[in-house]
Amino acid sequence: MKRKKRISKIIGLSLVTLCLISFFSCSSKENSSLKNQQSEPITLENDTLKISVDEGSGCFTVIEKISGQVWNPDPWEHAAGLLSLIDSEGKNQTVSLSKSRKIEISHKDDTTISIRFIDPVFEDGSVAKGVMIACEIGLDQNSSKLDVQVIEYETGSYRLVNLRYPSRHFSLKTDVDRGAAVIPQKQGIICPSYIFPMNGGRFCQWDDATYDRRSVGTLPLYGNAIGLSMPWWGTYNEKSAVLGILDASSEAEMEFNINNNGQYLFNAVGKMSPYERIVFLDPVWNLDKHEAKRQITYHFIPGGNYVDMAKTYRKAAIERGFFMSLKEKAKANPNVNKLAGAIYLGVYGGYPHYVNMPGMAFTFDQLKEIIRASHDELKVENAFVHAWGTFSNYAPNCWPISEELGGVAKLKEAVDLARKYGYLYSSYHAYTPLLENDPDFSTDLMGVDKDGKLIRAGSRWARVDSKHYTVLASKNLEKEIASLDLEADITDIAFVFTPDSGSIELARYLRSLNLVMGTEHGQEHWIPYFDMFEGMTYREGAVSAIPLSTIRQKAPLFNLVYHDAIGNFGKIQDPDNESTLNGDFRIKTLRNMLFGAGSLIFFSPYEFEGMHDMIKMANELVSPVHRETFFAELLNHEYLSADFKVQRSRFSNGTEVIVNLGPVAQKIKEGESLPGYGFQITDENGRIRSGQFELRLSVN
Amino acid sequence: MKRKKRISKIIGLSLVTLCLISFFSCSSKENSSLKNQQSEPITLENDTLKISVDEGSGCFTVIEKISGQVWNPDPWEHAAGLLSLIDSEGKNQTVSLSKSRKIEISHKDDTTISIRFIDPVFEDGSVAKGVMIACEIGLDQNSSKLDVQVIEYETGSYRLVNLRYPSRHFSLKTDVDRGAAVIPQKQGIICPSYIFPMNGGRFCQWDDATYDRRSVGTLPLYGNAIGLSMPWWGTYNEKSAVLGILDASSEAEMEFNINNNGQYLFNAVGKMSPYERIVFLDPVWNLDKHEAKRQITYHFIPGGNYVDMAKTYRKAAIERGFFMSLKEKAKANPNVNKLAGAIYLGVYGGYPHYVNMPGMAFTFDQLKEIIRASHDELKVENAFVHAWGTFSNYAPNCWPISEELGGVAKLKEAVDLARKYGYLYSSYHAYTPLLENDPDFSTDLMGVDKDGKLIRAGSRWARVDSKHYTVLASKNLEKEIASLDLEADITDIAFVFTPDSGSIELARYLRSLNLVMGTEHGQEHWIPYFDMFEGMTYREGAVSAIPLSTIRQKAPLFNLVYHDAIGNFGKIQDPDNESTLNGDFRIKTLRNMLFGAGSLIFFSPYEFEGMHDMIKMANELVSPVHRETFFAELLNHEYLSADFKVQRSRFSNGTEVIVNLGPVAQKIKEGESLPGYGFQITDENGRIRSGQFELRLSVN
Repeated sequence: MKRKKRISKIIGLSLVTLCLISFFSCSSKENSSLKNQQSEPITLENDTLKISVDEGSGCFTVIEKISGQVWNPDPWEHAAGLLSLIDSEGKNQTVSLSKSRKIEISHKDDTTISIRFIDPVFEDGSVAKGVMIACEIGLDQNSSKLDVQVIEYETGSYRLVNLRYPSRHFSLKTDVDRGAAVIPQKQGIICPSYIFPMNGGRFCQWDDATYDRRSVGTLPLYGNAIGLSMPWWGTYNEKSAVLGILDASSEAEMEFNINNNGQYLFNAVGKMSPYERIVFLDPVWNLDKHEAKRQITYHFIPGGNYVDMAKTYRKAAIERGFFMSLKEKAKANPNVNKLAGAIYLGVYGGYPHYVNMPGMAFTFDQLKEIIRASHDELKVENAFVHAWGTFSNYAPNCWPISEELGGVAKLKEAVDLARKYGYLYSSYHAYTPLLENDPDFSTDLMGVDKDGKLIRAGSRWARVDSKHYTVLASKNLEKEIASLDLEADITDIAFVFTPDSGSIELARYLRSLNLVMGTEHGQEHWIPYFDMFEGMTYREGAVSAIPLSTIRQKAPLFNLVYHDAIGNFGKIQDPDNESTLNGDFRIKTLRNMLFGAGSLIFFSPYEFEGMHDMIKMANELVSPVHRETFFAELLNHEYLSADFKVQRSRFSNGTEVIVNLGPVAQKIKEGESLPGYGFQITDENGRIRSGQFELRLSVN
Repeated sequence: MKRKKRISKIIGLSLVTLCLISFFSCSSKENSSLKNQQSEPITLENDTLKISVDEGSGCFTVIEKISGQVWNPDPWEHAAGLLSLIDSEGKNQTVSLSKSRKIEISHKDDTTISIRFIDPVFEDGSVAKGVMIACEIGLDQNSSKLDVQVIEYETGSYRLVNLRYPSRHFSLKTDVDRGAAVIPQKQGIICPSYIFPMNGGRFCQWDDATYDRRSVGTLPLYGNAIGLSMPWWGTYNEKSAVLGILDASSEAEMEFNINNNGQYLFNAVGKMSPYERIVFLDPVWNLDKHEAKRQITYHFIPGGNYVDMAKTYRKAAIERGFFMSLKEKAKANPNVNKLAGAIYLGVYGGYPHYVNMPGMAFTFDQLKEIIRASHDELKVENAFVHAWGTFSNYAPNCWPISEELGGVAKLKEAVDLARKYGYLYSSYHAYTPLLENDPDFSTDLMGVDKDGKLIRAGSRWARVDSKHYTVLASKNLEKEIASLDLEADITDIAFVFTPDSGSIELARYLRSLNLVMGTEHGQEHWIPYFDMFEGMTYREGAVSAIPLSTIRQKAPLFNLVYHDAIGNFGKIQDPDNESTLNGDFRIKTLRNMLFGAGSLIFFSPYEFEGMHDMIKMANELVSPVHRETFFAELLNHEYLSADFKVQRSRFSNGTEVIVNLGPVAQKIKEGESLPGYGFQITDENGRIRSGQFELRLSVN
């Protein structure tokens, strides 16, 4: 680690002060003449990395020495950071920190450079007086890690909204770098940085999207429908990878620009963008929250890709206490073994939306018959039967068991039969909703703000104040367990966000009951409390309008980190039996095996016969893979074909899965081709099973 | 028609004036006391309708006498109209016209009532002084039609943004009325007003969406990706239907609220909505455009539904000159007959995005081989081959034919072969784009505004000023036709919006060449110029984020109006060979037959073999139906199952199609069941063909 001279730009400052006395426009001129002095950059260095901070702009360049990869700063505007602020008249502007009147760069110590951006200058030459942003860049002595932190800031007379810092650093050049942006959006995606063969209208959309707003946006951390499922992201090319992991106590959104040339910055002024297409991912720090730490640590991985990133984060996840292995869980509760190979059968009776809903409600005799037929006729070996609609009250009051549908005795017959077959069973539970159509609807359990306004009036599934969750659960759940002799529980909704005291209390309470525990998609924080998530699946498009769907390839980032820690099944809004944006039954079934997920079939009683063939195919194809890989780490994932349709994954138990998610036969090695919608599975004993889905037209 | 007394509320006005002198809050009290005077409503009446205008609110009620249906005004707020306006401080508010200080209602003549809303009152009691909205309601003497018009307005010191008028009239009560909202969103949708059995996560989403913003929004008229394809909409229940058709010279957006209880109006104030769930569709009049006429005509159809609405509009479409039958077109150019039964085969070489794109470009020899194999091996009888990528320049310069790919002679061999088989052929043409990646990119052809700003900097596919379209086309197209002896042309993009002088000039020019003419989805205005549209299909979700996708059933509204006027194929962004939000190959293929559309298969050369099975199935199943119904009117469409999956359509030539778009076998008549993904087609000669798609898993 070499110490470089301290820079304080005293001459520049004096000149600026002088200029201020005369006229404004002089200051930036002085500033640029300073930049041209070609003074030596201030640097940090260890065995694998060299970081140079440009004294004119405060931007930094990282040389990753092993591969020789140079990660340059913002190629568009040379902006170290982009600050969004509102002036006293309510005008919102974004300003480049590198256009500050004063940038102080200094060594804080041997491993840390301090950078202070003072008085940023707007496009029109006016100055955001009194605004200051202080950052630090710290290089780990013994590893390829760089800490970047926003230390403090002063607001002047402005409201500072947010700060992208570092901005547009670690970018890829579209079609020059053959790599990708890596984004843990739900299960995970990568966005390739180059053109590749594809079709079905997908290429048109892919290329078009990179020139419009579909390739630009912001993703929140740990959101329900659309957010990042893990606090990291990165970019890689053929030489090297860089992964940014947010500090455990930090929160940031992620801004993305995927192969876009920034035309959106010029539309309003009616000009063509002078910039090249690039890929970048920026942390967006909220500056309204004063207490939060704002640190991201960049990890540099020579020759790395998205798998290496996930595996690097896996270590952090273990450190953070998010990871608890399914093996440990099964040791504590052997019934967890029953999840391995299970098909998640969701039987929907209209609940929790409606109680005993005509046309959809099932009787407990019907439920029993569905369980019997699944075992005796469809030969399902493992199942988790989730019955939606067994209570005669609306959630959050999950009690009593409906007499109308058959009462406790009849439901117990169904549950007993499930247990006899080794299936898991849970009725649907939720302690968060308050529904307008509930005849007992009341606002009593809702939170109010200081003015007495209802806090979550518009969010019917999460209206209950979380402090009531455990009271609601404990009022009835143990009665239900005792009545039905239950081994498993699914509790919906309460764990789709990050923990608060009420939801933690509920999770602890549920965990104390020694059941196989499942919940709706969850977040990583909840992994120690649960054995299965209903799914870290992709919910894009129609529901939540994430533009990334046209420019991404699905990648099992969440499972590369957590496969051996939490059982993953689909999402009831997007079950394997429905054709959706995520594919039809063929594609979803192949992807289940590839990612190490279990099948999810969700149906109303009247639809059960229509599910038979799919349940049989899931049992034949997915269950054996799920059974043997359930406790295994997902070690690797690769795209084998140029169009990303053929993919391979490997699990720590030895299982290898190759699937073709497209209709076109493609070569997987010399002399070996995988047919459209085909698969080749090598099980943990080395036995190979291959085949394909075929769509046939039969005319009578 | 009876004439009622003239109301001018002179007493009320005097009282109000008096109050103004003392204090504000008095005025609304006076107003409400006036409402309680129970004076006789002012009415219009003919043999089938009676319209009563409430003098207190200016709202109107329509009694449709034949069925006895009473169409009440806004059940939530009793608002005749909702005016959005901005005050001098930039604050945007919405105000109910029925809360105006003064509402003047009078008979203009025997058939027309004039309503003037003067000085609307805000929630806080303050008055939008000087604001006036004048409307007229006119009843046709001899038919079940009611004209509603916004005649004029005064703005006071406000900017009037828009006006919903009439607002929330003709609404349905959710789960009380068993009907639907009918919306020509692209091909068309209906949104049922009641709960019905459905699943696959669809019910959860359907019900959830009705309680959040997915069921509320605005659709533009004639938009590219998301708009209404025709200027009408309506609601119906079991008794009666009401259809609003915009005047030919009127433009309005359509606001929808589908089974939503208006909770969105109360979230900000932290209260629960006191309203019931309802369905309504409102015209939204833009008040910034001073010149436009603002008239909607409501048609009342006892016992009617979406089919009757479409058929009513069909008459208007014919009057407006949008309709020209395919029979007439085939008479003028017998090659139009070749479209009947055709599979649209889009061969994508990366163009127009890139020229001679590695990995995707085809050679003309390859193209010829694709045509040969389609005919000789796949036995395709009719096809429209559309080759994307034959020129060595970027669009809009569609010339010269690429020497690199084989030159004119080789391409002519492919085109000759297509013609020999009776196939249509066109290379891809577009005269609207200017692409950044074109080495000859220049802004010379772009329009600029008065300040010299480029007008469409951000819209690469529509950057060319439309005055240049015809110049660009005529420079090269006739050379190409002569070189290749062409019979057909597809010109992309230029006709996705409503006509302007440049696009009309281009359409006229293209029509003059006596080719079979096709274009991207088109709008109804372009039907006289074209023989086929690439598709009035559904583009929702990922691309354009229309929330309606979770709460609608697809209905062939556009084809009920125009099937016999324009050939309809899918959309290349959503071809039949891809699994998307619109379904997989099975579902799309069944829907093609049902709606009377042709198959569309879109692929890169490397994918052709993967398309073989699908092309064969489309040829076997869809082409015979398309061939015999091509010139026929689509007479009727019905949903036969409670879950809307089983549907039937009937064409004027006698063809009847019944399909099951879901996996569950369902009864279609006593003793007769249609299997999952099954079909039963009765051809025009009465022969019945039935069968189903089957998905099989074959394991080696």
